[in-house]
Amino acid sequence: MAKNNQKKELANMEENFPQWYTDIIRKADLADYSPVKGFMVIKPYGFAIWENIQDALDNRFKETGHQNMYFPLLIPETLLEKEKEHVEGFAPEVAWVTKGGDKELNERLVVRPTSETLITTMYGKWLNSYRQLPFLYNQWCSVVRWEKTTRPFLRTSEFLWQEGHTLHETAEEAQEETLKMLDIYREILEDYMAVPVVTGRKSPKETFAGAEQTYTVEALMHDGQALQSGTSHNFGTKFTSAYDVTFLDRNNEQTNPFQTSWGFSTRVIGALIMVHGDENGLVIPPKIAPIQTVIIPIQMNKEGVLDKAYELRDRLKDKVRIQIDETDNSPGWKFNEWELKGVPVRIELGPRDLKNNQAVLARRDTGEKITVDLDELDEKLIELLDQVQENLFNKALEHRENRTSAANNMDEFKENLEENPGFVRAMWCGDQACEDHIKDETGATLRCIPFDQNKEGIEEDTCVYCGKHADEVAYFARAY
Amino acid sequence: MAKNNQKKELANMEENFPQWYTDIIRKADLADYSPVKGFMVIKPYGFAIWENIQDALDNRFKETGHQNMYFPLLIPETLLEKEKEHVEGFAPEVAWVTKGGDKELNERLVVRPTSETLITTMYGKWLNSYRQLPFLYNQWCSVVRWEKTTRPFLRTSEFLWQEGHTLHETAEEAQEETLKMLDIYREILEDYMAVPVVTGRKSPKETFAGAEQTYTVEALMHDGQALQSGTSHNFGTKFTSAYDVTFLDRNNEQTNPFQTSWGFSTRVIGALIMVHGDENGLVIPPKIAPIQTVIIPIQMNKEGVLDKAYELRDRLKDKVRIQIDETDNSPGWKFNEWELKGVPVRIELGPRDLKNNQAVLARRDTGEKITVDLDELDEKLIELLDQVQENLFNKALEHRENRTSAANNMDEFKENLEENPGFVRAMWCGDQACEDHIKDETGATLRCIPFDQNKEGIEEDTCVYCGKHADEVAYFARAY
Repeated sequence: MAKNNQKKELANMEENFPQWYTDIIRKADLADYSPVKGFMVIKPYGFAIWENIQDALDNRFKETGHQNMYFPLLIPETLLEKEKEHVEGFAPEVAWVTKGGDKELNERLVVRPTSETLITTMYGKWLNSYRQLPFLYNQWCSVVRWEKTTRPFLRTSEFLWQEGHTLHETAEEAQEETLKMLDIYREILEDYMAVPVVTGRKSPKETFAGAEQTYTVEALMHDGQALQSGTSHNFGTKFTSAYDVTFLDRNNEQTNPFQTSWGFSTRVIGALIMVHGDENGLVIPPKIAPIQTVIIPIQMNKEGVLDKAYELRDRLKDKVRIQIDETDNSPGWKFNEWELKGVPVRIELGPRDLKNNQAVLARRDTGEKITVDLDELDEKLIELLDQVQENLFNKALEHRENRTSAANNMDEFKENLEENPGFVRAMWCGDQACEDHIKDETGATLRCIPFDQNKEGIEEDTCVYCGKHADEVAYFARAY
Repeated sequence: MAKNNQKKELANMEENFPQWYTDIIRKADLADYSPVKGFMVIKPYGFAIWENIQDALDNRFKETGHQNMYFPLLIPETLLEKEKEHVEGFAPEVAWVTKGGDKELNERLVVRPTSETLITTMYGKWLNSYRQLPFLYNQWCSVVRWEKTTRPFLRTSEFLWQEGHTLHETAEEAQEETLKMLDIYREILEDYMAVPVVTGRKSPKETFAGAEQTYTVEALMHDGQALQSGTSHNFGTKFTSAYDVTFLDRNNEQTNPFQTSWGFSTRVIGALIMVHGDENGLVIPPKIAPIQTVIIPIQMNKEGVLDKAYELRDRLKDKVRIQIDETDNSPGWKFNEWELKGVPVRIELGPRDLKNNQAVLARRDTGEKITVDLDELDEKLIELLDQVQENLFNKALEHRENRTSAANNMDEFKENLEENPGFVRAMWCGDQACEDHIKDETGATLRCIPFDQNKEGIEEDTCVYCGKHADEVAYFARAY
């Protein structure tokens, strides 16, 4: 809707990455600020990206046997308080409803910051026997967490997400579910969003309030900062025992079921911007691009140009999300505009192309142009979209690998973070004091203990901070 | 998830329709009550119906050029107050957020009861020139309106809906949009949900707070009560002038744009239940049924029965939403269970059927059974699903026509309502006093002034209440 979305107005991403990020959001028309501080409006182009992510995720949830439900927005204060760690984690950041219509409420209600408390309560009402298990449910909704400093998509006081909540007969099944859903997040990020991730478990300090173990998918942004892009939690029986949820098991005994939850939010749109964007604007991987291809007619008043554009659009529209830019802006202006919006492939079509029965395809990721015979356009275009998708992933992976270093002591750790900001792989003894000291001294937090315990470049089994024996490699980074 | 969903436990619908309604919701496992009074949980089977309705609607919105967005949940009190009629209409029924985290807020926020106030404000920020118009946007979300008496789906303090909000250059375009979206609601109700509707405009009294004109689709339930099933509003420039939204028009003058909004909610699931349900339970039209066909294996331990069931399911699953009931309940129990859940067609498959290469198809709507050669199963099943869809609409239409009467005076009016509860068609002078008196004396409200001004059975152009001259026929009914 904005009128002057031209890339020359973007901040230089190498010099001022935060400003570049904000510029992209405004100029590619992804989101806007609302009258309430910290709450954002997601505009059509940003929302269409979210819809494509939602579709991909929702399909995978359903393929793996999950069903959607809807649980209420408001949760009574007493319910929130039943699980001690959980209420301590969330109470400081919830919005309180104290009045309904013209009456003060007898009991305050919180706007859901997450729904474990309510959903566990309802599951307790429904569950009787092991024959009903597993419960495999999910909901798409918005949640509110009162944030002090906010940035569009990355950290807002309200965000959209899905929260899956499951119950299982055994600890093994709950663990399997926790990891299965984490892997679906990895798949959506890597295969759809072309965002490579490190998967692993969180340290106890970074574990979700009330969970036994949190697992995470961590992505690395262009500026070398990490972004937690999805989490999956194994609760064991911590909530089900606190909320007194039991079932009659195979031995005819009343037992607490094992529980998981997992969430993925609009925050990942921030990752998308910061992983693929460049000095010309947004770059969207074809699989989730609202517009995969835009046709730019050149000299569109010349006979046959627009007609051919319509013909191509109609021929391609069942295979590709495609549109024509018929506005009366100049071709150059349009090139800039659609580059800014990150459309993966542009088709240029002018009178000379018509004469030669050809079109020019321009890739957003590399800028490369190829001339294609119109008879082969469909297959070439689809091939090119696949190549763009693959190249974006490979570029992001290469960037992450270049920005991942090993550190054997704190001097190396600090030097790496300074000279080549990104992930630092280092041994960690498991002591929270070391984790805290590292954060205080470097600003880097422990992102995860990765499943892949590759020790390349690591010389000894000693904690990078305290020097005591350490069994595991951890990933550290400054993070959003 | 419930264990004893058997139809014998349903209340008699002719004797106690409200109890029958509640029984259906519980036994077909559509929804449950939450710990906060008036707020419901929509369970997987109920939510899957909503997802199918959403899909159908969302496709039509997109086909007609609309895009989705997301606007925040919380609205500042001062914004709500800018349009006088609107705040008077909604203030008594909103939930107030007064505290965020541990701080009292400087300004109270309302949980959105509808989003005109916020969206109009944002539109004002974005709109500059007529070249940007129309704005054609929609959002899917939940809204909160504090209700005193609630019933699942029909009236709850929170419900799910979509709210479309558009801006236009001219009054004509806004009016065209208002009616186009109303017609999409009619189409979804009639063609997907098999619920026939009367379309028309609301009386000024029943018009949405702040709108110039509200249009409605009104359905008639089995018990003869009406249900408003979707509304579309033309605001003219009432909100855009109150919120000071202007654009530079073709004459280079700052002008207020013309505005519409339109909403359709989970309430229609109540209509679905009360229009099609019968003494055996729910009946779901195939186009929106989460499960269109269930295969019930008879003597499923006999060799080949389950294998054939799998084979048929796999053959059909891309054409029909189908599943097999493999539980160890008896076939009779399963028949009852799936009838209660309203699955449109049941396939019975036993050893004798296998021998004869056939299966039995049982229709949920009529109970009729036909035997079909397995080689012809696919086409026969699809044909049958189409017939069920059509028959449900025709039955509902016949019921509505039988329950629609004309009244020329208040004696006829009351007699009709008493003896054959439903819609009463009668002339109305346009005076709200007559509308109020009719309500006080009969409990019937003015549902709409229908587009179709059929005057069959109406003898004179005089108001059914005051006897003064009247130009128009109105539909009256008791309503949910």
